[in-house]
Parts: sequence; C-alpha cells; structure tokens
Amino acid sequence: MAMKTLSAKNAAALDKDLMSIGAFSIDQLMELAGLSVSQAVFRVHPPSRGRRILVACGPGNNGGDGLVAARHLWHYGYKPTIYYPKQSKNDLYQRLTTQLKNLSVPFTEDFPKALKENDHIIDAIFGFSFSGSIREPFPAIITALQETHLPITSVDAPSSWNIEDGPPPSGPGATFMPGTLVSLTAPKPLVKFFKGRHFVGGRFVSPDVAEKYDLDLPEYEGIDQVVEVGSSGQKL
Amino acid sequence: MAMKTLSAKNAAALDKDLMSIGAFSIDQLMELAGLSVSQAVFRVHPPSRGRRILVACGPGNNGGDGLVAARHLWHYGYKPTIYYPKQSKNDLYQRLTTQLKNLSVPFTEDFPKALKENDHIIDAIFGFSFSGSIREPFPAIITALQETHLPITSVDAPSSWNIEDGPPPSGPGATFMPGTLVSLTAPKPLVKFFKGRHFVGGRFVSPDVAEKYDLDLPEYEGIDQVVEVGSSGQKL
Repeated sequence: MAMKTLSAKNAAALDKDLMSIGAFSIDQLMELAGLSVSQAVFRVHPPSRGRRILVACGPGNNGGDGLVAARHLWHYGYKPTIYYPKQSKNDLYQRLTTQLKNLSVPFTEDFPKALKENDHIIDAIFGFSFSGSIREPFPAIITALQETHLPITSVDAPSSWNIEDGPPPSGPGATFMPGTLVSLTAPKPLVKFFKGRHFVGGRFVSPDVAEKYDLDLPEYEGIDQVVEVGSSGQKL
Repeated sequence: MAMKTLSAKNAAALDKDLMSIGAFSIDQLMELAGLSVSQAVFRVHPPSRGRRILVACGPGNNGGDGLVAARHLWHYGYKPTIYYPKQSKNDLYQRLTTQLKNLSVPFTEDFPKALKENDHIIDAIFGFSFSGSIREPFPAIITALQETHLPITSVDAPSSWNIEDGPPPSGPGATFMPGTLVSLTAPKPLVKFFKGRHFVGGRFVSPDVAEKYDLDLPEYEGIDQVVEVGSSGQKL
C-alpha cells in the first residue's frame, strides 16, 4: 500500500487551516513541531552517541522548528550549536533566538568548522514551501550536508529536495540522503525517494482536518509526539 | 533537607521574567505547562485506569493550562470533558477552547453530573495568583472536589489553598487533599502541606532564572516534560 502524502500546495493550505479554523497560533504549532523533532533526534541519536548537535536553520518556518528543537535538546542534556546565517527579523524567530542565547547556546558562522566539532546534524534549512532556488550561502551548505559522514536528521524535507519530485536532478542536493526524516503533520510526496528512518511528528491534527486532506495519520504511542513509520506510512 | 520553594510574589515575577528577558510568549509557556500536566496525568492515571477525564478550568492562566492539558490528553486517547464556567474573552483562551471544540471535546455546565461520569479530575481552577476569595460558582465546586472519591490532579496548587499557608482554616477547601499535584516551573510553599504524588513540570527554565530565584530544580529524565519528586524536592 502506498503512503498517503500531502502535496506542497495542500501542506500550505493545511497550515493556514490550522491557524484559521484550527485557532492555533504559530507559536504553538512551532513549539509542538520543534518538540517532535527533538524527540525524533533523541530516539535516533540518544545522548550516549554524542551530545554535540549542529542545527542548521534556514530563514523561514523550517528554521524556526530547528530553533525550537535545539532548545528542547539543550534541556535533554545535548550541546546544540546553531548555524543560522539568514536570521529573520520576524518577532517570533527573534524570540526563539533569544531563548537559545539565554541558555548560552552558541551560534556559529563557520559551517565547515562546526561540522568537525559535532556528532549529529539537524537540517532545518528548507521545508515544504521550498521554491527550488537555493540562495547563498546555502548551496555550499547543502553540498557539505551531502558529503559529510555525520548522521543527519532533516525537518519535513531533505533541504534542496523538491517537495513532489525529490532530489534535484543535478547540483547541490542531487545525492543528498539524510539518515532520518521527520515529516511534520503528514508525509510529503518526496518520501517516495527517501531511504532512511522516517518519523511523523506534529500531534495536533484534528480528525476533521485529517479527513479534509485525506490524511492517513499513523497512531502515536502513549505520550509520544513522534511516531516512526514504514514505507506504507504505518507505525513501525 | 527542606524543599526550596517559590513564593507567590516571586512566582509572578518569574513569570514576567520568562516573558520579558526570557522572550517566551504566553502561548509557548502555556503549551509546555499544559503538556507537562498531561504527562503527569498519563503517569498517575494511564488510560487503562479509565479514559474519562473531567477538566475543571478557572478563569485565568491555571484554567488555560487545563485546556491545553485536555487537548494533549485527547490525542493520547483519553475522553476529556471540560467544566469552564467563567470563560475568558482573552483571545488565547478562546483559541484554546476552539481547539478543543474542533476535537468534539464536550463542555459541561453540570459539575455534579460530570463527577458521576468521569474517572479522574484535573483541578485547573486556581493557580499561584489565587487571591484567597473563591467567587461563584467555585465554592460548591471546591466542596465537591473535597468530597469526591475520584482521583484528582491539581495544577500548580490545590485550588482554594493559600500559596504560602496551604489549606484555608475553614470553609471550602479546608480538607481538600488531591492525590497528585503538578508544580509548574517550581514548587510553591504550599507543598509543605501536601500529601500525595508531587510532580514538577515546565521544562523551560534557564540556569540564569533558576539562579535568580534560588531554585533547586530536579533533574528531568530523557525527554520527559515532568519529574516526580519526593519531600526534599529531589527526583524520586
């Protein structure tokens, strides 16, 4: 059975619905999305495998999810470092940044150096609204993610991948394959091209919304905010 | 060793600090506080003991924490019912209410009837800013909480208790003793008078803030948002 997925267009519409009909604030949704990511990282890369986590954040919501995940990981005992070269002036992102600075979480501008000093990477650069054009300084970052031997967890999409068609045919990201993917709310069509551990997170979708977008959400266990799924999209 | 506690005055000051220096939004803090409460309830009253949870919400932030907890409990497979007689016109509380209505969570106005139809109660009526005067319709609700044989989890404070001095000397609440208490951020002085299972939740306090308020926070385990503590305030 093929996994039911959420197109880029529907993912954007669902996000809007969550905030209008759903009455969620972006603060709430991002907090729960980032929390999901942090729980997936804890599962695939427990602190015993190395506490140093490099969190690469893009300029939009995907980056915001990364900032939230980094804060929770700090509280779990990890040592996150943030690479966030295009910081948004949006109030929410600035607050998420301050929350990390208050924990003395370091921000770095030297990605190659940071790669040498960490045990795991969170790729929170581009998400479901990725347009297909990788602006500076991200081409080199995507290439570095593609080449590193460090384990990587991608948030919602491996950055540079087309949401429908997967890896770009050439250039940065063409051979990028993170070990872990956390699909937020629901898997996107690109999961067909993904080989690795796949989690679904974002435990806030109402039955009405799931029905409207024809989602077949996996069953979460207990109090988990994340669930690992197989190639059919069912809970492993 | 006596537990370090946070006075009512300092709890209010700390909350302000979290939102100013800490840069947290109330949405974020309430989401994490309510999540903590839901995790404590899952621990003391797993779904196998009965899924029907009555959530009694007061007019302020304590009630908001209850609304958030109820939503997470729904996602864990519980069947919450909300008693929320003094609904705030504040945008956040209205949104939290809508989020529950979108899950078809029922709101009741008949507390005595609801007591007969549930397995566990969350007391989210009054928190650390409780003034000492119990306005209508809450005197009867507090009396009912005091008399019921259902297990109760209180959020931040057993409602009606003075934050410093514990149970009132007479009247509603004088003999109220919930089985479980979830102290948010840090225990308040009233914990001296509490006999039952005690959890601390709200895993978002920075070391600076903990130091400023001379808090001795227990160590959380793994990804838990809640930690059970003994009479000295240390992790059980």
